[in-house]
Amino acid sequence: MNRTDVLVIGAGLAGLAAARALAAAGRSVRVLEARDRVGGRTKGGSTADGQWVELGGQWIGPTQDRMYELVSELGLQTVPTYNTGKTLVKLGGKKSLMGEKKGAIPRLSPIALADLGQGLARFTALSKKVDLDRPWLTPNAPMLDGQTYRSWIRRNLRTAAGRAYFQISCEALFSADPSDISLLHAAFYMKSGVDLETLMAVDRGAQQDRVDGGSVLVSERMAQPLGDAVVLGAAVRRIEHDDAGVRVFTRSGELFEADCVIVTLPPTLAGRLEYSPPLPGWRDQLTQRVPSGSVLKLYLVYETPFWRRQGLNGQVGSDTGPVKVTFDNSPPGYEKGIMLGFMEGNDGREWARRTPDERKQAFIDNLAEYFGEEARHPLEYIEQDWMAEEFSRGCYGAHFTPGVWTAYGQALRDPVGRIHWAGTEYSPIWNGYMEGAVRSGEATAAEVLAGG
Amino acid sequence: MNRTDVLVIGAGLAGLAAARALAAAGRSVRVLEARDRVGGRTKGGSTADGQWVELGGQWIGPTQDRMYELVSELGLQTVPTYNTGKTLVKLGGKKSLMGEKKGAIPRLSPIALADLGQGLARFTALSKKVDLDRPWLTPNAPMLDGQTYRSWIRRNLRTAAGRAYFQISCEALFSADPSDISLLHAAFYMKSGVDLETLMAVDRGAQQDRVDGGSVLVSERMAQPLGDAVVLGAAVRRIEHDDAGVRVFTRSGELFEADCVIVTLPPTLAGRLEYSPPLPGWRDQLTQRVPSGSVLKLYLVYETPFWRRQGLNGQVGSDTGPVKVTFDNSPPGYEKGIMLGFMEGNDGREWARRTPDERKQAFIDNLAEYFGEEARHPLEYIEQDWMAEEFSRGCYGAHFTPGVWTAYGQALRDPVGRIHWAGTEYSPIWNGYMEGAVRSGEATAAEVLAGG
Repeated sequence: MNRTDVLVIGAGLAGLAAARALAAAGRSVRVLEARDRVGGRTKGGSTADGQWVELGGQWIGPTQDRMYELVSELGLQTVPTYNTGKTLVKLGGKKSLMGEKKGAIPRLSPIALADLGQGLARFTALSKKVDLDRPWLTPNAPMLDGQTYRSWIRRNLRTAAGRAYFQISCEALFSADPSDISLLHAAFYMKSGVDLETLMAVDRGAQQDRVDGGSVLVSERMAQPLGDAVVLGAAVRRIEHDDAGVRVFTRSGELFEADCVIVTLPPTLAGRLEYSPPLPGWRDQLTQRVPSGSVLKLYLVYETPFWRRQGLNGQVGSDTGPVKVTFDNSPPGYEKGIMLGFMEGNDGREWARRTPDERKQAFIDNLAEYFGEEARHPLEYIEQDWMAEEFSRGCYGAHFTPGVWTAYGQALRDPVGRIHWAGTEYSPIWNGYMEGAVRSGEATAAEVLAGG
Repeated sequence: MNRTDVLVIGAGLAGLAAARALAAAGRSVRVLEARDRVGGRTKGGSTADGQWVELGGQWIGPTQDRMYELVSELGLQTVPTYNTGKTLVKLGGKKSLMGEKKGAIPRLSPIALADLGQGLARFTALSKKVDLDRPWLTPNAPMLDGQTYRSWIRRNLRTAAGRAYFQISCEALFSADPSDISLLHAAFYMKSGVDLETLMAVDRGAQQDRVDGGSVLVSERMAQPLGDAVVLGAAVRRIEHDDAGVRVFTRSGELFEADCVIVTLPPTLAGRLEYSPPLPGWRDQLTQRVPSGSVLKLYLVYETPFWRRQGLNGQVGSDTGPVKVTFDNSPPGYEKGIMLGFMEGNDGREWARRTPDERKQAFIDNLAEYFGEEARHPLEYIEQDWMAEEFSRGCYGAHFTPGVWTAYGQALRDPVGRIHWAGTEYSPIWNGYMEGAVRSGEATAAEVLAGG
């Protein structure tokens, strides 16, 4: 019999965390995963010489307590992100260096510094007022949700450098343009991950650590004890739910039955499944309004991490791209240099339409601007376009467009009959991060356990 | 053999107009329709005594030339929308009357009048600059697309009455809140349908006429000569496309083959189909960002159209609802009175969660405020929730959220291999209207014919 107590759709961090918690509580569970691998928006890869690289989500940092615990429970270790030397800032065609410690500020004119300082203070004050559990009850929610993040930036920052900081950080955090995002959502997201400074930082920030061997190991180790309960290549197409339970059909025609189901797909993809009876109109319309971000993750491998000899840590923040943000992603002890770059937001959308060779060349050109001509001789290029992935359709996470938190927010987490929802988009804490995915998966497992 | 030259998905106005044009050009064509009826977002209904009512799109007006032609070609007639008497305006708790001729202006204080006049002039000037075929090339497109329509309204209108006019008209035209919509999209849409004044008017405006017997007759008459080529109850689930052609699978497992396919579903629903190979990331992400509006269409039938005795035409514009907009929808010659009301935008979202009885009572309460206590004794209540319709998931049309025209607009109309797109959302002219649907269907048929 293909019947279990619970079915979980999606073997990413949320789904596996939920399944693990349910199994630990004695429930029979089955996890249906569309791909031939676990990990969802985390994904392993390797260089030609076999060194691990990470093609999806990869960082953890302070206050992501559940991820650190989980890494430890699973017998894994963390390694620090390379962060020795200065960060390179390129604004208005001018390069400058910035300290690598949290709280460091780019070298700007006194006017730009004052502008940026005031903008950050204002945004932090605004963000602190958000009700994380119920953003629609935040004071002035209709006003905050009725405008784009871009409108706020234009009104509150006056210098090119100040605006550039907000633009670059928005692209880096949401892989979306400030035009795309509700101001209330931006404020919610920043508070959900402590604050903007923490989200942007390596030192004591969201990019502080990595999982040794790759973040996908967290999913792989969670999946291992579940054994055959994790079914790969099982793309779910249809969910029928009634008094008797749930019946879940895959594209290949397999049927799985359970008392209830946890759907851990990003909201848009959850909205693309067939439901019988159909989802309520209000819940369905929510899934039409929470699009996923737009990002390609790119690697160039070099004979050596030559930027380190220049006293640089490999991190860049630039107002021209298409690769505006880079990191030294070489694992400790690896003699070669692995440079990581992102094409995010509108850059990602534009460059996704070009060829891998064109993207490689653009990345090389950007690195040559940042680190000099040595960048022109990579050993290898690796890329991952998350928009093109049929079972993700965007990364890092999804964002709420204007008006959506206030009009539809209450529909986000509520189960629909026997259908429960989980995923990093559902988490009030570290929304959009691996931490949020695990917390949401465990919270939804607890909801299922509490409900019977 | 289930193979035709062309497959059309969706038997709404766009799909049937496309199929009709292709058949006229000698192509073999088949139309696959998920429902057990044609007409898409137009739908017929009737009162208890058998009088026709329209549950979906219903109006046509000047410059909608293709619809008037088509109505005539199909042997149908138009009838005028009832428009004798004054329109009732209720703002800030105060009722006033407004002339029923196009260009009439509500009775407001001189300050509010000046504010509204200036706001309308500014918006019209802005709207005129939009490039209808390529909105992303409109001057200042990133600025216009980077803010919500609400932000523009707040900045450009200062009086409660001026803001109310823009709020009510936005809800009436988009069944969405000004928070939800890109300013560029609002400006595009108004120009697409001539201008805001035309869109809001009955006299010489978009609500001037109706199709005698109901707009759904246009689809039914287009479908009739196509005979068995229109397959009802064929909900498409999957499209495979390659050098050999397209193979389209329905939920019940039927297979249809063709040289190419025209998908006429609203963008969101088109994005929910399975495609093999999957859609390009950029095209897929577009479908994540064009949500459909939120509306319930409500009717109350009365023994007589009693509002007419008060010198009123039955039309209301109110800043309090949930039913803020009404029309006298009694067909000519019908002795009873059919009052039509809408719950739109945030009202629609909120009231969709309540019961039919609660909605009926709210509608009655609103009508009693507008027209007096006679409204408390209806003979009959009829309602249609378009959000709950599995194969529409919203009405009237879809809207572009901020940032989407500029980042994704170019992906809207381009075919993907053998897959072509049509529907009112794709039309530069009368986007969102029946006219846009027919024009888009015919334009895409021409595109298919030109391509071989």
